[in-house]
Amino acid sequence: MSDAVSPLALPFPDMPPIAGVTARTVRAGYKDWGRTDLTFVELVEGTAVAGVFTRNLCCSSEVELGRQNVALGRARALVVNAGNSNAFTGYRGREAVEAIMEQVAAHLGAPREQVFVSSTGVIGVPLPKDKARAGIAAAFDAPAVGWEQAARTIGTTDTFAKGATASAIVGGVTVHLSAIIKGSGMIAPDMATMLGYIFTDADVSPAFLQAALSAANTRTFSCITVDSDTSTSDTVMAFATGQAGNPRIADATSPGADAFAAALHDVCRQLAHLVVRDGEGAQKFIAVAVSGAVSDDSARRIALAIANSPLVKTAIAGEDANWGRVVMAVGKAGEPADRDRLSIGFGGTWAAREGQPLADYDEAPVAAHLKGREISIEVDIGLGDGRATVWTCDLTHGYIAINADYRS
Amino acid sequence: MSDAVSPLALPFPDMPPIAGVTARTVRAGYKDWGRTDLTFVELVEGTAVAGVFTRNLCCSSEVELGRQNVALGRARALVVNAGNSNAFTGYRGREAVEAIMEQVAAHLGAPREQVFVSSTGVIGVPLPKDKARAGIAAAFDAPAVGWEQAARTIGTTDTFAKGATASAIVGGVTVHLSAIIKGSGMIAPDMATMLGYIFTDADVSPAFLQAALSAANTRTFSCITVDSDTSTSDTVMAFATGQAGNPRIADATSPGADAFAAALHDVCRQLAHLVVRDGEGAQKFIAVAVSGAVSDDSARRIALAIANSPLVKTAIAGEDANWGRVVMAVGKAGEPADRDRLSIGFGGTWAAREGQPLADYDEAPVAAHLKGREISIEVDIGLGDGRATVWTCDLTHGYIAINADYRS
Repeated sequence: MSDAVSPLALPFPDMPPIAGVTARTVRAGYKDWGRTDLTFVELVEGTAVAGVFTRNLCCSSEVELGRQNVALGRARALVVNAGNSNAFTGYRGREAVEAIMEQVAAHLGAPREQVFVSSTGVIGVPLPKDKARAGIAAAFDAPAVGWEQAARTIGTTDTFAKGATASAIVGGVTVHLSAIIKGSGMIAPDMATMLGYIFTDADVSPAFLQAALSAANTRTFSCITVDSDTSTSDTVMAFATGQAGNPRIADATSPGADAFAAALHDVCRQLAHLVVRDGEGAQKFIAVAVSGAVSDDSARRIALAIANSPLVKTAIAGEDANWGRVVMAVGKAGEPADRDRLSIGFGGTWAAREGQPLADYDEAPVAAHLKGREISIEVDIGLGDGRATVWTCDLTHGYIAINADYRS
Repeated sequence: MSDAVSPLALPFPDMPPIAGVTARTVRAGYKDWGRTDLTFVELVEGTAVAGVFTRNLCCSSEVELGRQNVALGRARALVVNAGNSNAFTGYRGREAVEAIMEQVAAHLGAPREQVFVSSTGVIGVPLPKDKARAGIAAAFDAPAVGWEQAARTIGTTDTFAKGATASAIVGGVTVHLSAIIKGSGMIAPDMATMLGYIFTDADVSPAFLQAALSAANTRTFSCITVDSDTSTSDTVMAFATGQAGNPRIADATSPGADAFAAALHDVCRQLAHLVVRDGEGAQKFIAVAVSGAVSDDSARRIALAIANSPLVKTAIAGEDANWGRVVMAVGKAGEPADRDRLSIGFGGTWAAREGQPLADYDEAPVAAHLKGREISIEVDIGLGDGRATVWTCDLTHGYIAINADYRS
């Protein structure tokens, strides 16, 4: 954890424990530091698992094995290493992951395929097997910890601990979701990989858990961007212990399925926003809302083009209602758009409508809006009903300082 | 022109006049400044024309009309306005362009379709017709100027005047090419649109001129990037007056066609590099060379993903041989790549080979290379024969200062 807390940080929420989930943290010493850096989460037998993983083709062994084993649907444990990403380390990196899976599986008497591993930190250095082995052995005997301690231990360049919670009523039974995430920047492969874990006591089939997580991902984690870069290790997983005693959610037609999916979506949205709020050098949280596109997908691609534009992001940093740069970003997205139908606003005030600057454009409310911490950019394409919202942060001197001055 | 000249600037070359081309410059006063801001270039009757234009869908009226009229193959004049891009100005912007075309066509007794107009500067403000009209009338009587004065007059945020020249022997006759360009950043729609003009005395058919320019564009202007943003007005045009008296180049099989195309490619490459050398805040000129991809196109997309990555660009700014960030950028390009075959080097020294850090990696020559102004990043994908080189600059505090502090 860094010392200078993001000005966009939120306090860690009060999050309920989840029956069937026990987290423990130790210092494996992956780097020469005093902090805890290994998180071991034990899950009760029968826990369902789902996951979404980076699309980066140069992904780590952790991601390859995770993607493969999540398809089997069951989990007994999660290990998260902070300080070393184990990415781009060839067969030695893979051996280290397999050794961790073996050790935990033997301890729990569980199949190896039910042990999930994530690693985050420097790239290109194989995870030291001896440190991992000793750390995990220590973790078996370590005391259980609360969510905030677990969130801190999975963090690397994060400037604050990130958690989110929600609940839903399923067949008359309240189920809880408690979740933690790390990531600050979307996403530096060195140190700022996004790793998110959602734990729930709901009884859910692995298939429905995966469907609900994938759907939520499309409108949350896939809709945030800090710098358009994509980590080799990004991972979001959901674990459902089934301890709440609700009537089982087998599929989308089961009672309570919609309520559960909505709560999962809510947690994912909160987590995604927290990552943006810890964007490297971020001073402003920006929502880009696109409407009137030919489809929702098209709207999302346009919104991402705007959110990834360095010129738009620096304009917001400079508190400049520079709608010309937004026009440019819409145009370069390559999606259907017509200059003469385009409308652009900031904080609910239109600056340009149907391709032309507004004759009676009132700059005062826009200028006041841009001085705040929470910025919205509204774009209407004027062609259809497609809409999407994407979240990002501004691009500041802080981003350059963090990324130009960091040494691998 | 800005006061602080880019540290990567090159001196303006000694460029020959081109028979059949006369440039004049005046101050139309598009902004409240003392400098010349309108360039009028008269071309001898029969001049062939070709052009490549921005793919930004929200392009200006100048680009729409230029793209349309270039297809007719002939040009008699070029007008370049600096200080106002006339983009996103609806029908009033279009009227201003058509008025300029009318005025020049009437003066020269030429078809309106042979008058080409470009505008660069602030967006969203219709080009003032009265100022343009008075400026053009004055230009008809202004003295002819040299290339450097023309290059300065088309410039906006450029910190130095940019020109390039080359020659070729066509059927025993030497033909000359002299070219100017403006742009600093790829590309801020406000002020840093890329506008390039190549003039040659060669006798070339419009069809071959277009084919040669399009081919050169693919490997030059399409291979540079400063910040991944795309202007609404980017334009590169070639004008061939036919005054050299060479045997006409009708098509690719004509004698001298290859020599002429090579000279045109050379000029385009020089111009493209000059734009990168004036990249906003640039301290280092970076060549990204990708080999071993499945195709040349694939190699170019991978090279652009690397060159557009803020994390790679800040690493170079920090003189950090951070090959992990290059791996990340390769992976996110979405092109065929295999982590375990990937090799990455800097300045001719491999840092990682076939997916793993080099055991005997010698950091000293790499560190020395990264302290220089001219940086190369070499990436071998290890899958095929596709190769491409892309040019960019580093991402520095200067970029943020220029773009966050500029007010529209």
